[in-house]
Amino acid sequence: MQVLNPLVRQVGEHVLMAGGKRLRPVLTLLTARCFGRTGQDIYPLACSLEFLHSATLIHDDILDNAEVRRGKDAAHLVFGLKRTVLAGDALLALANMIVARYDVPSMNYCVAEAILRTASGEIEEIGNMRNPEMDEHTYLEIVKGKTAFLIQAACTCGAMAAHVDKEAQEHASLFGINLGIAFQLVDDALDYAEDVSLLGKPHGGDLREGKITLPLIFYLKSISKQKRLTLLDKISENSLGEKEIDGIIVDVQRSGMDQKVRQEADKYLQRAAESLSTFPDVPERGLMEEMLELVKTRKF
Amino acid sequence: MQVLNPLVRQVGEHVLMAGGKRLRPVLTLLTARCFGRTGQDIYPLACSLEFLHSATLIHDDILDNAEVRRGKDAAHLVFGLKRTVLAGDALLALANMIVARYDVPSMNYCVAEAILRTASGEIEEIGNMRNPEMDEHTYLEIVKGKTAFLIQAACTCGAMAAHVDKEAQEHASLFGINLGIAFQLVDDALDYAEDVSLLGKPHGGDLREGKITLPLIFYLKSISKQKRLTLLDKISENSLGEKEIDGIIVDVQRSGMDQKVRQEADKYLQRAAESLSTFPDVPERGLMEEMLELVKTRKF
Repeated sequence: MQVLNPLVRQVGEHVLMAGGKRLRPVLTLLTARCFGRTGQDIYPLACSLEFLHSATLIHDDILDNAEVRRGKDAAHLVFGLKRTVLAGDALLALANMIVARYDVPSMNYCVAEAILRTASGEIEEIGNMRNPEMDEHTYLEIVKGKTAFLIQAACTCGAMAAHVDKEAQEHASLFGINLGIAFQLVDDALDYAEDVSLLGKPHGGDLREGKITLPLIFYLKSISKQKRLTLLDKISENSLGEKEIDGIIVDVQRSGMDQKVRQEADKYLQRAAESLSTFPDVPERGLMEEMLELVKTRKF
Repeated sequence: MQVLNPLVRQVGEHVLMAGGKRLRPVLTLLTARCFGRTGQDIYPLACSLEFLHSATLIHDDILDNAEVRRGKDAAHLVFGLKRTVLAGDALLALANMIVARYDVPSMNYCVAEAILRTASGEIEEIGNMRNPEMDEHTYLEIVKGKTAFLIQAACTCGAMAAHVDKEAQEHASLFGINLGIAFQLVDDALDYAEDVSLLGKPHGGDLREGKITLPLIFYLKSISKQKRLTLLDKISENSLGEKEIDGIIVDVQRSGMDQKVRQEADKYLQRAAESLSTFPDVPERGLMEEMLELVKTRKF
């Protein structure tokens, strides 16, 4: 971060120091360790994945008009739109610089591709806001785009940094993409779950923003056609009142759709576990198994 | 561009097809050819430099609330803020992907560093808006940041793609940075020049936006202290009326400060020419000499 202009660094520090689970850098580190890369020089690579994630978060918060991120005021509200857009660009560039220093061109390609897919996923999400045609397939593409590809890249880069063969690299990638999908599915289930006070987000925020996620898609499939069409009309016209939204959230909960989404997530966690079982049997693999369990059971 | 999500591609095509001088890709191509890289596989690299430039333009236009770019409506006015921020991110990532395909890690580093410096330069420019302390040194840092580093990267990447030695690479870099500085100085001089109708920008746009550029810095040094302090006060308070602004622009012209800035630019063009003279004596070098002449004499 020292290479950053102070005007950029403040924005970066604001979002990076606010906390977060550090899922991506931990995955890079653990994957690299699993495949035998020792030493401390892996840390900058791990950090670069968190920089990428933070950059997408601060751009995303601008686009969503978000007010809170990681329990703090969103960066654009503190530093203004201009500095925040540019700080995001600078963080993306810094991450690419760090990755380039490892002299593994495929790693640069992997990271750049993940950023492209993340931006594309976010655009798809925006393009499908309040879209009554939204289905499971489109939803899954958005989930992969906005979340899973970057988590996949975190794992793939870790494997690449350990100079593994193609097959091991493929296992690391599959582990990452399936974990990433499951992570976002659970996130979307939690948005409809009973107690999300610890999530730091408003309850039912996705529906309020017009994002049609899997719990709602499942719910819509479970009700009568008449009720479904009326509801979809209101969602697409953005004419739902606050009380109606609260009512829908309760209905989705009561019908157990958030739990059904978690079961769906379990399928992806199972696939991730299968890929993980091919990793060398070292203590770091055990930690990664625990991460699957954490994603499965997390309540916030 | 085919790899891009259609929602991103439309934004990219809007800005890329609107025209522009294609200065950066031409520099990459000519530098690579000068140093003996033949064949068509250099074209994607050249394009990636234009993608980078376009990405910075569309983010920049959001930040400047610009209405027109390359004679067309600015992208954010056509596609909205959200798609345009994300399309910029996607274009940056696409450029990094293309560069990574060449398997020259130093090229990835070079490009990422240029993006970081460009974003930092733009933030510096914003941070120094209406700053009465603005001096030639800070101005030059901003010019390097927002313009010259990317032009430098265009030349350095061309040389790297031709696998030149360190010394030749250094000459290509020096050529690029000096050409880039001169290019921006002339651009800033033209903003105060008598006839800028072909520039596609409003006359005196920099002063109107609160950007303190070299013609104004020279002019401020040429007037009495009393007059200077009054003027700087008004600039920093943003209290200049339209007529006052028009008056200042005429004063800067009449005092010949735009010409003085062009003379300053000539110094950098001279340095660029010295670096260029060390390039192999091939027809492409002749074209690059003509580019120096074009920058020197351009009227729009």
